[in-house]
Amino acid sequence: MAYFKVDKIQYEGPQSKNPLAFKYYNPDEVVMGKPMKEHLRFAMSYWHTFTYMGRDPFGGDTMNRHWDNTEDVMEKAKERVRAAFEFMEKMQIQYFCFHDADIAPIVPNDLAETNRRLDEIVAVIKEEMKRTGIKCLWGTTNAFGDAKFVHGAGTSCNATVFAYTAAQIKKAMEITKELGGENYVFWGGREGYETLLNTDTALELDNFARLLRMAVDYAKEIGFTGQLLIEPKPKEPTKHQYDFDVATVIGFLRKYDLLPYFKMNIEANHATLAMHTFQHELNMARINGVLGSVDANIGDPMLGWDTDQFPTNLYDTTLAMYEILLNGGLGSGGLNFDAKVRRASFEDDDLFYGYIAGMDTFARGLKVAAKLLEDKVFENFKAERYASYREGIGKDIVEGKVGFKELEAYALKNGVTPNKSGRQEMLESILNQYIIETK
Amino acid sequence: MAYFKVDKIQYEGPQSKNPLAFKYYNPDEVVMGKPMKEHLRFAMSYWHTFTYMGRDPFGGDTMNRHWDNTEDVMEKAKERVRAAFEFMEKMQIQYFCFHDADIAPIVPNDLAETNRRLDEIVAVIKEEMKRTGIKCLWGTTNAFGDAKFVHGAGTSCNATVFAYTAAQIKKAMEITKELGGENYVFWGGREGYETLLNTDTALELDNFARLLRMAVDYAKEIGFTGQLLIEPKPKEPTKHQYDFDVATVIGFLRKYDLLPYFKMNIEANHATLAMHTFQHELNMARINGVLGSVDANIGDPMLGWDTDQFPTNLYDTTLAMYEILLNGGLGSGGLNFDAKVRRASFEDDDLFYGYIAGMDTFARGLKVAAKLLEDKVFENFKAERYASYREGIGKDIVEGKVGFKELEAYALKNGVTPNKSGRQEMLESILNQYIIETK
Amino acid sequence: MAYFKVDKIQYEGPQSKNPLAFKYYNPDEVVMGKPMKEHLRFAMSYWHTFTYMGRDPFGGDTMNRHWDNTEDVMEKAKERVRAAFEFMEKMQIQYFCFHDADIAPIVPNDLAETNRRLDEIVAVIKEEMKRTGIKCLWGTTNAFGDAKFVHGAGTSCNATVFAYTAAQIKKAMEITKELGGENYVFWGGREGYETLLNTDTALELDNFARLLRMAVDYAKEIGFTGQLLIEPKPKEPTKHQYDFDVATVIGFLRKYDLLPYFKMNIEANHATLAMHTFQHELNMARINGVLGSVDANIGDPMLGWDTDQFPTNLYDTTLAMYEILLNGGLGSGGLNFDAKVRRASFEDDDLFYGYIAGMDTFARGLKVAAKLLEDKVFENFKAERYASYREGIGKDIVEGKVGFKELEAYALKNGVTPNKSGRQEMLESILNQYIIETK
Amino acid sequence: MAYFKVDKIQYEGPQSKNPLAFKYYNPDEVVMGKPMKEHLRFAMSYWHTFTYMGRDPFGGDTMNRHWDNTEDVMEKAKERVRAAFEFMEKMQIQYFCFHDADIAPIVPNDLAETNRRLDEIVAVIKEEMKRTGIKCLWGTTNAFGDAKFVHGAGTSCNATVFAYTAAQIKKAMEITKELGGENYVFWGGREGYETLLNTDTALELDNFARLLRMAVDYAKEIGFTGQLLIEPKPKEPTKHQYDFDVATVIGFLRKYDLLPYFKMNIEANHATLAMHTFQHELNMARINGVLGSVDANIGDPMLGWDTDQFPTNLYDTTLAMYEILLNGGLGSGGLNFDAKVRRASFEDDDLFYGYIAGMDTFARGLKVAAKLLEDKVFENFKAERYASYREGIGKDIVEGKVGFKELEAYALKNGVTPNKSGRQEMLESILNQYIIETK
Ligand SMILES: [Co+2]
Ligand SMILES: [Co+2]
Ligand SMILES: [Co+2]
Ligand SMILES: [Co+2]
Ligand SMILES: [Co+2]
Ligand SMILES: [Co+2]
Ligand SMILES: [Co+2]
Ligand SMILES: [Co+2]
Repeated sequence: MAYFKVDKIQYEGPQSKNPLAFKYYNPDEVVMGKPMKEHLRFAMSYWHTFTYMGRDPFGGDTMNRHWDNTEDVMEKAKERVRAAFEFMEKMQIQYFCFHDADIAPIVPNDLAETNRRLDEIVAVIKEEMKRTGIKCLWGTTNAFGDAKFVHGAGTSCNATVFAYTAAQIKKAMEITKELGGENYVFWGGREGYETLLNTDTALELDNFARLLRMAVDYAKEIGFTGQLLIEPKPKEPTKHQYDFDVATVIGFLRKYDLLPYFKMNIEANHATLAMHTFQHELNMARINGVLGSVDANIGDPMLGWDTDQFPTNLYDTTLAMYEILLNGGLGSGGLNFDAKVRRASFEDDDLFYGYIAGMDTFARGLKVAAKLLEDKVFENFKAERYASYREGIGKDIVEGKVGFKELEAYALKNGVTPNKSGRQEMLESILNQYIIETK
Repeated sequence: MAYFKVDKIQYEGPQSKNPLAFKYYNPDEVVMGKPMKEHLRFAMSYWHTFTYMGRDPFGGDTMNRHWDNTEDVMEKAKERVRAAFEFMEKMQIQYFCFHDADIAPIVPNDLAETNRRLDEIVAVIKEEMKRTGIKCLWGTTNAFGDAKFVHGAGTSCNATVFAYTAAQIKKAMEITKELGGENYVFWGGREGYETLLNTDTALELDNFARLLRMAVDYAKEIGFTGQLLIEPKPKEPTKHQYDFDVATVIGFLRKYDLLPYFKMNIEANHATLAMHTFQHELNMARINGVLGSVDANIGDPMLGWDTDQFPTNLYDTTLAMYEILLNGGLGSGGLNFDAKVRRASFEDDDLFYGYIAGMDTFARGLKVAAKLLEDKVFENFKAERYASYREGIGKDIVEGKVGFKELEAYALKNGVTPNKSGRQEMLESILNQYIIETK
Repeated sequence: MAYFKVDKIQYEGPQSKNPLAFKYYNPDEVVMGKPMKEHLRFAMSYWHTFTYMGRDPFGGDTMNRHWDNTEDVMEKAKERVRAAFEFMEKMQIQYFCFHDADIAPIVPNDLAETNRRLDEIVAVIKEEMKRTGIKCLWGTTNAFGDAKFVHGAGTSCNATVFAYTAAQIKKAMEITKELGGENYVFWGGREGYETLLNTDTALELDNFARLLRMAVDYAKEIGFTGQLLIEPKPKEPTKHQYDFDVATVIGFLRKYDLLPYFKMNIEANHATLAMHTFQHELNMARINGVLGSVDANIGDPMLGWDTDQFPTNLYDTTLAMYEILLNGGLGSGGLNFDAKVRRASFEDDDLFYGYIAGMDTFARGLKVAAKLLEDKVFENFKAERYASYREGIGKDIVEGKVGFKELEAYALKNGVTPNKSGRQEMLESILNQYIIETK
Repeated sequence: MAYFKVDKIQYEGPQSKNPLAFKYYNPDEVVMGKPMKEHLRFAMSYWHTFTYMGRDPFGGDTMNRHWDNTEDVMEKAKERVRAAFEFMEKMQIQYFCFHDADIAPIVPNDLAETNRRLDEIVAVIKEEMKRTGIKCLWGTTNAFGDAKFVHGAGTSCNATVFAYTAAQIKKAMEITKELGGENYVFWGGREGYETLLNTDTALELDNFARLLRMAVDYAKEIGFTGQLLIEPKPKEPTKHQYDFDVATVIGFLRKYDLLPYFKMNIEANHATLAMHTFQHELNMARINGVLGSVDANIGDPMLGWDTDQFPTNLYDTTLAMYEILLNGGLGSGGLNFDAKVRRASFEDDDLFYGYIAGMDTFARGLKVAAKLLEDKVFENFKAERYASYREGIGKDIVEGKVGFKELEAYALKNGVTPNKSGRQEMLESILNQYIIETK
């Protein structure tokens, strides 16, 4: 049955005026020796695409999906699965991501029934996966929405909530394994605090590490070999989120000897909420060897909350793909659109427009980034810029051969070699030219 | 000779209408078993107090200090030393902090002459220290002001600038030792980047760690036993500063096995520029055992740059002293006013008003925090709040006795114990009452 | 019937340890010749207090009010009315504020039925008002929550939505009149834009003015003599809200000759979202003669959205009351707590703690502000500071007697009289002393 | 004599790899019936280009211009004039903008000597203008840099500073007239406040209006027919700047009946500091008929101060030119680069790279905006979107034929016509396609 009137979205090239076509995403086009679709392992977020109905803090639903018009909650969940797979097929999206709570109606505090429902829906998803060849990029658990998580999940002051969270992650990890998920994500939506006046941060952080350690152990136990990922976010819904940004999470993982087991799932919108650029967060993850996967949705730099917009900024996608290519790709990770259509984009077609916007902008970013790398535009500039560390006193510094006394002697004798310009404006001009002119 | 017309500032108590008197800072008053002056090891920042003349990015000097009216740069530097010690005596401040470049006129790229000048001024400072009993809280080097640091100091792309930086720190550390400095601070004003387009962050961070390692080694070599401190700041002057915040710096130090050698010098204004509260940064340092010292100056929450204002917010000082008391004090650290009087507060007397404002506000904060702790206001609330981790399943979690399977079994059997309110509004009310009513 | 177990909240004074008592709000205590309760015309917001159940963008309800446990929506609405009036009685709050949609369950797009329901509930409210003597500070309409307002209400691109909005305001104004409301508020929650790419700002602003003009006319027609108020907010839920801040709204009203008919309802949290201090917005309204009423709830300066917290910051309340006293009070306006208890403060008692926190903090602010004014602390300083405009060339400037040529002649002849310090630090110290020491 | 080694910058087209060539700015290329150079009346800012030496709040000069190496301050000023005109010739820039203080060394508080110096330099400028055909876009006065302006200029608490400011503007306006300046700009760098505790905002704003009124009168008296412009900025250097944003300034001008005499000079960086997009500010000015001129420099959305970067963001320049084309151009205004090369771009060549970057990005923006308008991409969408106001009840609303009663009757009878999607994602996709594909 067809849930959407729209036909499969096809690549028509940059001159197409068809809004329901790709202008830049050409799945089989080879870039740097690999087809685009392998560089750009796009994923659909189940939640924003099939359960977000337009609600915001000041208003109710604006979207009305006809496949939701059934009374029975389990039937509705199954209809959504089928609609979702049709949508992905039509969008040529090869992966999906999900929270447990997205796919099946949870029953708060009835874990047994919730798990039974999950199993029932997972069976339907598996059928659809088999039918379509679409795969699971990652699963996760929603341990933030229900009232019991009001004080946190793994960092709750209530130990029974910690226990429930563990049980929920256990099931979500099992499901993810069953669905062949290539990664498992932790986003700690309530792992933070509202006020320090009532919070024991030391205990909460220790407990959070305990939870992650249990997850590592359980993954090993059940043979789940997907990559474990942590998604940093600085704030919202809590006033302060413990997983503030990439640097914070790396430091936390090092402290508890957990770094070998985790990589980062970096969301562009969370980067900017932490007052970093998206590229900065990707770069920090890359140089620390923990760039795992990406939530590609962006925010509005003038707004202070997570707007989760489809990525339509060419600078963001170019510089993101630049870091990803330097990283040798994302391995088992991908580009998940943790993005929702605007509340005012409430028609079914807008789902297509949103994904087309994001996929085309990333496809263009890939092409531009690849050309920048092939031409070694920034790489050559940097090689020259840091040349002084490849010989003489610079080499001695890097190789640990000198200390303060030797360097003082050097400075007294040689003074300082003149600096050269950083050429920021020139480099920004070149970036623009590549964004416009790359074929 | 008297540089200031103002007499020594005396404690006159809360009812005094004399603007040139302390209302709350009563140095010998005993709080929690120790005189105030031992809790509050206030320090004068040499730079903002004796070299800041009111310049800002849009305008020139507004202040005219009569003791600066001498042509000879070394004579002027000596006059400043004498004025500074008179000021500290009159303010009853027992410590000072300095950069090399504050105390003596550096000669860019003539290290030998610069060092000779430093020695000459250090001799004068030692005389004044002997005369007054005032001590050195910490020294540091200014490796950000001169043009050669335009691309960084320890993170410069120019290896000879790295060498010069090392030489400069060597000398500053020697001076600090000679002056009996109890700590040595690293604030990396240019250790960051302007644009990722031209930056090799991996090399720069490695180099920064190399510099710190050399500093650790040299301190050991010369027997400097003061605490080494790093002062985080997220941005400004650079677009991105590597020492973004406490969590970032701890992570960085762990990565390079440097954590045992360093603590944090936390500046209130830098906390808020990183979108953290001051208390948050103190708390993160405290629970990680690295709360070393404090730069007490605050910013304006509506402004996006480092305003370095004297701390006049009672909430900030109360909650800061609360964390410091929980930390068992600051050890060899203190409360440095890295604060400048406003550009429009250009009269000599304003220096007194500024320091009185800061010292009184912190003295009040100390009293309130001590009372909150004595009454166990928040501590009892928290003990009750986290009680579930001291018995039953919570105790098992903390002691590592359970994993996902046991916790799932527990959750299936027991569900979730109801949460209790976090009582934020009640706690905020109580805090207000303590701020107003503490005697 | 008693909805709340808590007894009536009484004034017990600053030493009380009873969390369910006022420490500072003493309704009949005379301050500057008037009882506190007349200075502080506190109002309960119906919506945040009786319809907010703890939902946020990442999670569901946390609060469960026992009086809501009825199936029938109209019965539930009536229970809420009775619970609300009991709450106000117990809190000693003399006023309430409401949206149409708070008090009765609206039926989207069935105006007739919605209006009938409103009438039915209004009757119950009137009974309760009569019984208790509690009054209506202001009414307003909710023209932002329902899906039809997705593109705006008075600024919708859909003219039939404009018509519906007008009809809804008409009814809300009639109800407000019937309830003796002393003001009527316009907060344009969707009057703004999401993207300029699809927006005709010129038409939308003209239409918004048309709507306000109709409201003025209709108020006159029905003899509603309450003050019309506009509540500025810069953003959220929309990306850009037309009523950005006080200055913007005043400019807008002047343009359309509407200024004589409106004053401002200033919300503290909206001030800071616009990067202004609360005092700034009050001051701008005051000097333009349009300070009408206040929404007293504050935000978190580290967060970028409307947290609507109870006001517990003594600086905010002191400086707010300072402006309000300078304004000669708020006339028909009051201090509405457009504040919600934190999501984690989900117990019924927290409603009391929240209001006590806000009322006590404002009561203290009133006392401090009154003392500052009685002692003419800032007023004398300012009189001296601007003295040069009361004589000589300054007087000539103010009286319009001179132009560029005369002033050039003056400057050539006389140069500039030396400036005096602005004494910011001294004034901030004094403010602290008053906050702590005022009896 | 040649000050710069670089040859005249030529248009070489989008494929050029020459960093010292235009890729997009082709001065004589006709766009929408006019050569690019008439659409894009680029101006050089004298200050940032020839007097900014790299200083920032944490460090000193980084730039060393060889033509500055002369002892005599007047000779140096003349060398700068000649270097500036050579630079503009080589950059193909037809206009310059200046403050009085940029072109000649002012003597604080010696107005007569300052004016004499100005006259001497103006003569040199006139020679160069004659020689090159380069014109003056606008002049202004620097009434913020000198210490006497510490409390403001037209809003100083010191009436003699007001007088001096008036005298200085008088002279600057005379010079601007003599140089054929097409506009005169007011940027009130110190017209604001640091703290409300010491500020009489009512008097200060009245005085500011008095100053502007005098300027209007004097312009008339001397026959200066250039456009008077106000440049909004929300903060920095002051905590709060009275000319916060376009809406605030329009409201202020209306209040004092000054609106007919002024238009706006909108700076992109000031827009974002006020938390508006650049397009927003242009749009607000355009629909109010006061879009006068543009300062094209941008800021960094992650930083909270005025970075004054060259505009290299294609979205900014496209949407800015879109508003400017809708405005029918800028009339006597232009595109001033109030931009400075980065502190690390300290070589002479970087001045060229900076201006090339800005001019190329704006040239590209012009082409894209023109194509968007020719194809009526957004205009057609908006026409359709607001169609309901061109007939039926919408037309009645716009024409003022209906009030609340008629609209209620309409709503009761007709309900609401369904809304249509705002299609934000689709429109953003199209914008990207135009940015990349426009020929
Ligand atoms: Co997000
Ligand atoms: Co995400
Ligand atoms: Co600072
Ligand atoms: Co500091
Ligand atoms: Co609000
Ligand atoms: Co409000
Ligand atoms: Co600017
Ligand atoms: Co400008």
